[in-house]
Amino acid sequence: MADDLTRRGFLKQAGQSALAAGVAAAVPLAPPDKQPEHLPIQGPPQKKLGFAIVGLGELALSEIMPAFALSERCRPVALVSGHPDKARKVAEHYGIDPRFIYGYDNYDDLRNNPQVDVVYVVLPNHMHAEYTIRALRAGKHVLCEKPMAATVKECQDMIAAAKGADRRLMIAYRLHYEPYNQRVIEMGRTHPYGPIRMISADNTQDVQAPNIRLSLATAGGPLGDVGVYCINAFRYITGEEPTEATGVAFRPDDDPRFREVPDRIVFTLRFPSGVLAHGSAGFSSASSRNYRVFCKDAWYGLDPAFDYTGLRLHLKEKYKREEVQLPEANHFTREMDHFAERIERNKEPATAGEEGLRDTLVMAAINRSIADGRAVKIADVGPDGSIVTGL
Amino acid sequence: MADDLTRRGFLKQAGQSALAAGVAAAVPLAPPDKQPEHLPIQGPPQKKLGFAIVGLGELALSEIMPAFALSERCRPVALVSGHPDKARKVAEHYGIDPRFIYGYDNYDDLRNNPQVDVVYVVLPNHMHAEYTIRALRAGKHVLCEKPMAATVKECQDMIAAAKGADRRLMIAYRLHYEPYNQRVIEMGRTHPYGPIRMISADNTQDVQAPNIRLSLATAGGPLGDVGVYCINAFRYITGEEPTEATGVAFRPDDDPRFREVPDRIVFTLRFPSGVLAHGSAGFSSASSRNYRVFCKDAWYGLDPAFDYTGLRLHLKEKYKREEVQLPEANHFTREMDHFAERIERNKEPATAGEEGLRDTLVMAAINRSIADGRAVKIADVGPDGSIVTGL
Amino acid sequence: MADDLTRRGFLKQAGQSALAAGVAAAVPLAPPDKQPEHLPIQGPPQKKLGFAIVGLGELALSEIMPAFALSERCRPVALVSGHPDKARKVAEHYGIDPRFIYGYDNYDDLRNNPQVDVVYVVLPNHMHAEYTIRALRAGKHVLCEKPMAATVKECQDMIAAAKGADRRLMIAYRLHYEPYNQRVIEMGRTHPYGPIRMISADNTQDVQAPNIRLSLATAGGPLGDVGVYCINAFRYITGEEPTEATGVAFRPDDDPRFREVPDRIVFTLRFPSGVLAHGSAGFSSASSRNYRVFCKDAWYGLDPAFDYTGLRLHLKEKYKREEVQLPEANHFTREMDHFAERIERNKEPATAGEEGLRDTLVMAAINRSIADGRAVKIADVGPDGSIVTGL
Amino acid sequence: MADDLTRRGFLKQAGQSALAAGVAAAVPLAPPDKQPEHLPIQGPPQKKLGFAIVGLGELALSEIMPAFALSERCRPVALVSGHPDKARKVAEHYGIDPRFIYGYDNYDDLRNNPQVDVVYVVLPNHMHAEYTIRALRAGKHVLCEKPMAATVKECQDMIAAAKGADRRLMIAYRLHYEPYNQRVIEMGRTHPYGPIRMISADNTQDVQAPNIRLSLATAGGPLGDVGVYCINAFRYITGEEPTEATGVAFRPDDDPRFREVPDRIVFTLRFPSGVLAHGSAGFSSASSRNYRVFCKDAWYGLDPAFDYTGLRLHLKEKYKREEVQLPEANHFTREMDHFAERIERNKEPATAGEEGLRDTLVMAAINRSIADGRAVKIADVGPDGSIVTGL
Repeated sequence: MADDLTRRGFLKQAGQSALAAGVAAAVPLAPPDKQPEHLPIQGPPQKKLGFAIVGLGELALSEIMPAFALSERCRPVALVSGHPDKARKVAEHYGIDPRFIYGYDNYDDLRNNPQVDVVYVVLPNHMHAEYTIRALRAGKHVLCEKPMAATVKECQDMIAAAKGADRRLMIAYRLHYEPYNQRVIEMGRTHPYGPIRMISADNTQDVQAPNIRLSLATAGGPLGDVGVYCINAFRYITGEEPTEATGVAFRPDDDPRFREVPDRIVFTLRFPSGVLAHGSAGFSSASSRNYRVFCKDAWYGLDPAFDYTGLRLHLKEKYKREEVQLPEANHFTREMDHFAERIERNKEPATAGEEGLRDTLVMAAINRSIADGRAVKIADVGPDGSIVTGL
Repeated sequence: MADDLTRRGFLKQAGQSALAAGVAAAVPLAPPDKQPEHLPIQGPPQKKLGFAIVGLGELALSEIMPAFALSERCRPVALVSGHPDKARKVAEHYGIDPRFIYGYDNYDDLRNNPQVDVVYVVLPNHMHAEYTIRALRAGKHVLCEKPMAATVKECQDMIAAAKGADRRLMIAYRLHYEPYNQRVIEMGRTHPYGPIRMISADNTQDVQAPNIRLSLATAGGPLGDVGVYCINAFRYITGEEPTEATGVAFRPDDDPRFREVPDRIVFTLRFPSGVLAHGSAGFSSASSRNYRVFCKDAWYGLDPAFDYTGLRLHLKEKYKREEVQLPEANHFTREMDHFAERIERNKEPATAGEEGLRDTLVMAAINRSIADGRAVKIADVGPDGSIVTGL
Repeated sequence: MADDLTRRGFLKQAGQSALAAGVAAAVPLAPPDKQPEHLPIQGPPQKKLGFAIVGLGELALSEIMPAFALSERCRPVALVSGHPDKARKVAEHYGIDPRFIYGYDNYDDLRNNPQVDVVYVVLPNHMHAEYTIRALRAGKHVLCEKPMAATVKECQDMIAAAKGADRRLMIAYRLHYEPYNQRVIEMGRTHPYGPIRMISADNTQDVQAPNIRLSLATAGGPLGDVGVYCINAFRYITGEEPTEATGVAFRPDDDPRFREVPDRIVFTLRFPSGVLAHGSAGFSSASSRNYRVFCKDAWYGLDPAFDYTGLRLHLKEKYKREEVQLPEANHFTREMDHFAERIERNKEPATAGEEGLRDTLVMAAINRSIADGRAVKIADVGPDGSIVTGL
Repeated sequence: MADDLTRRGFLKQAGQSALAAGVAAAVPLAPPDKQPEHLPIQGPPQKKLGFAIVGLGELALSEIMPAFALSERCRPVALVSGHPDKARKVAEHYGIDPRFIYGYDNYDDLRNNPQVDVVYVVLPNHMHAEYTIRALRAGKHVLCEKPMAATVKECQDMIAAAKGADRRLMIAYRLHYEPYNQRVIEMGRTHPYGPIRMISADNTQDVQAPNIRLSLATAGGPLGDVGVYCINAFRYITGEEPTEATGVAFRPDDDPRFREVPDRIVFTLRFPSGVLAHGSAGFSSASSRNYRVFCKDAWYGLDPAFDYTGLRLHLKEKYKREEVQLPEANHFTREMDHFAERIERNKEPATAGEEGLRDTLVMAAINRSIADGRAVKIADVGPDGSIVTGL
């Protein structure tokens, strides 16, 4: 039985990222038959950053709030909601001081709450920009759900606000922080099966009404809500920025859910190295969340790729088909812990505002292509953050 | 142990298609634990139609010639080749009369060989039209490999030649005749999981040089050679004709294989019912031959979908993932037996010339879209066979 | 977005088991595309029972301590360890009052700690009986790891001690409390594929020395440590008690790990309904933890079946192979929450002492069969808890 | 396109076994994307040995007769059946001379038919010995279905008859000749994942009445009919002869199918190297035909393992699960071609009579263990063919 308490110390001395250490400690990843050589806990717990959660919808209540239980670096200390009764019950359940429940009217009072280090914006898409900027101006770091915002301009304003306030802005691309997609990202850099030639991806679900994701006013629609996973995946797998997009959409006349937004979109992207990607985003079909990377000597991919749990990594070489099994981790815990660790070290998170801006630029080009029936060049971001080409 | 000899008789009385009966008899499909109730053979063997095989390349020698051994309706009786030595050895091996070896110079002499009922054209793509038309004019039925021809005009000429000669023309879309794709076609008609919303497909392989499929002069390139599988699948799954196409291609500068043709193409198709399809065709990546059909209540698809053997049918509903297992059959035997049965019954085969023409129209639109950078309307075939719109 | 706070209230009114409600609330089980209709939290948190964890080995530190974070009913309040330094670090990490660290010398002082409701015995097998009985006599409920004890007599003494002290005793058969094995148990009662005929199971791992599980003095060996999973599975799948056992063992001469215990054992069991089971337990091969249930119309089973995470439920009918996907839950949290709920309701847990006693009787018969080279009748437990037949 | 005709010549020059060459030529094994470098046919066809098929039951008609179409070395030239009408129809179908139809009364006239080189005995188990011995005495080589015979004595007599007549006797263990089991056999010799520790296997099916396999008079029952696959697999995987067996059987009282034979049997075997095996044979449950080999560093196995088609090779190492894909081949063609090749080269086939004798010895020990309720030593075969120990 393992009695050695030095693992954490060793990791720190070895200069290994505190993220890796923190994650390894927070989540019991060891497969059942693996006997760790060292005591699988750290010494004292981390100081935890205080989070204010803004918007108590499904995602916040089912995924984000429970994820704090597994975190060694983050804890919920405040809630922002338009429904005070609901907020009170949530606060009581999670042991949050009821004085730290805010409404949208006194949102800016967060400024005066020193317990709040980070504001996590989990609002409808069209509200991301405003509430992110106000939180930054209130001196808080911001973790903002994806899609980053409704327009390129809003994304730029959010980035500028973070810079102006000297605060960190991170977009909640949770898949950058979980082991399966991280493995694929690594393969995209090391090319163990030769160069990548093409990638395909799909993200579909059958959305039930009423749902704000079906409304234009709240910046809904399948491209921003689920297609963004494909687009972000194309980018994190290749490590490149796409230059050209096509898009085709369909909106059924006879389905009352889709009065405002299309129910399905297909799209293609061209990357500088020659990689071509094709994908789909759907709001009216059963869940399929998958991608496949076509390389010279093999294909590999995740299926499912974008779910909260149960991801699987598949690989096919000529005469064998393989499933690689990795320890699973809570995506939200990993994401929040990453941000906390970067804030403490005064560094940019891996998915800062520019990550969201770039996806928004790609989606803008796809939407333009849908409207115009032609391939559309994708704008680029200059060294100074300006939008330098296209559209 | 089964002693009953009446199964075949029963099938015939019941009016069941002779194809189904023939196939069931020719191929030992019964799973090992299934005890057939009747004697699994027919009475006397079928009269067999005589085939002349034109072109003794890899496909002819590795797949088509061996497939005759399993056929109850077809037998090889003549060979056409530019290499007399090779043809002699093949003839000897398969017991073909050496007098029935032809070259391309005396190809039209097939007219005088009453043993030859069907000419199977297995030539490079750019030769399909000429050798098909000459065989039809020689009074033979023709089974022609896909892609049907290099141009829409050639396809029209081939169809016209069949009509003029009152002979049957079939395009060798083998997947229409094997159990896995047939099951998917049936699902595409009966919609067991609600309407189809989208489809994706890929067909890639790493083609080695030298290969006529890398040459423009022989009408090579990934779209016609492997992309046609995706396009045909989109059409046979939906049972609809697409109306609009986009395409994006890439040709690497630094790979000597791809001086003339692109190594990868992605494309999208729009169908009248709203179905959107997206796919890829590749010549420089490891084999991936798959499609997935996104329906309201499930997705299903084949992976692999286009191989000669080993196809698998996958289905995913909300809480389960299923692999449906069907008895496997030799695609080429089934395809040839279908044609023989239709010829004997004086009926059009399931994949007559128009099937090839329509894929060619789709590919023409994709190529136009690649060239022009815009979505392109796909031409339609009028009741009289004329091309009625588009391009 | 879900605003309804009534779910928990509804469940309670509906008389649904508090266990189900508690579990559903504690673990975010909803698949990502499932929108719960009600607020996925409860009102105020449960009162939590205080646990003393006895033995800070690998299992305690890697699995049990972290599992408390997900629990709504249990919290760690005391530690018992022979290594005070280690215990202090663990206590600090998990926020346990350092005054509540005990050694084995002052173990009985737990009696005077009103914060401790439950003692969780995570000690080497040969210490289970003593420390369970002392805790029961100290007025605490006990959750004891499996195998329950080294001998049938010890099991009987533990059961008697619980009865004498009027406390609850639960054996930590975690698989009774997690969704995959629960589904199989349900299938074992409802017989959706006809009667069960046979079952097979394996539980193997490659144990590295030094390890107390390789020692006779600590009641180690593959049968008790991993074989017990197979035996318990045979019993919970059938819902029957086996009547006869055979066993065959091997101990290699040339592997220093296996001086005292065999490295592999195979065994068979006969059940009253006619079900026959065959299985293996191994300490020198790579992990395989699986079982398969052979029924009239299908086979189904888990593979892996016994791991802490990543279980998979497979089903094979004639023409299809299916994987049923269930939401995953932390086994240890579910197990502890079950015990807490039963204690609060003053009821026996689902895996009380008799569950461990019965497995021990089976293992005794297998060991006798190994020694004697003959099939051995398995003793039964009478209504008064006495051992009524056999041995 | 491949023009080279030298492949077969090369193989012969290189001394590669004619079997391998023959098989490669007869069956189009090349995966679709593999371009063979050489012409995938041989020069002239092989001279084919003439086979008389004895017994026109399900197996003969559904599997064996069609398999001749794929063979380059074997052809059916005579039939033996008790049903002349049926035999005539089969003969007509397969082009067999109607004069070469025999009944059981004139069976010995096969002696006078020089076209018949090999007699393939496909009769009920209890008739194997008699008809094998008579065919050997008639000067023919014999391929006899498994199980070899009803008793050890019969097996010995068959071996003696072959020796006496100087003819070859082969038992139809088809799995020794197909790629998937051959790969496992190779792994059993080379130990790529360390030593084998244990093996499990199951072979079950739901047998429908009436069926001679349910009758004692015809030497039916699950052990001989399906259990023999497990036992043979244990032996060919380890390459060892087992020394000790246990067996447990059950016969339901309320199922009219099982008046004479048990419906299920479980058994264990001990091998000299320490390998322990456990398995089952069932006649009342859905098909499961699988085995798994537990090694130090991985487990691997086939599932299904014993079917006529669709075998799959699975492999599990610590963090990955793999399916190895091999080209499929007709088991019966490969088996017959092996025998033909060995006869021509005047060598013993890989599964000569002793292979069947040894399985029969193992089954005798299992049956004795079932009867006696104790572990039973398995008899061995001495250098002179005598049974040297046990029973």
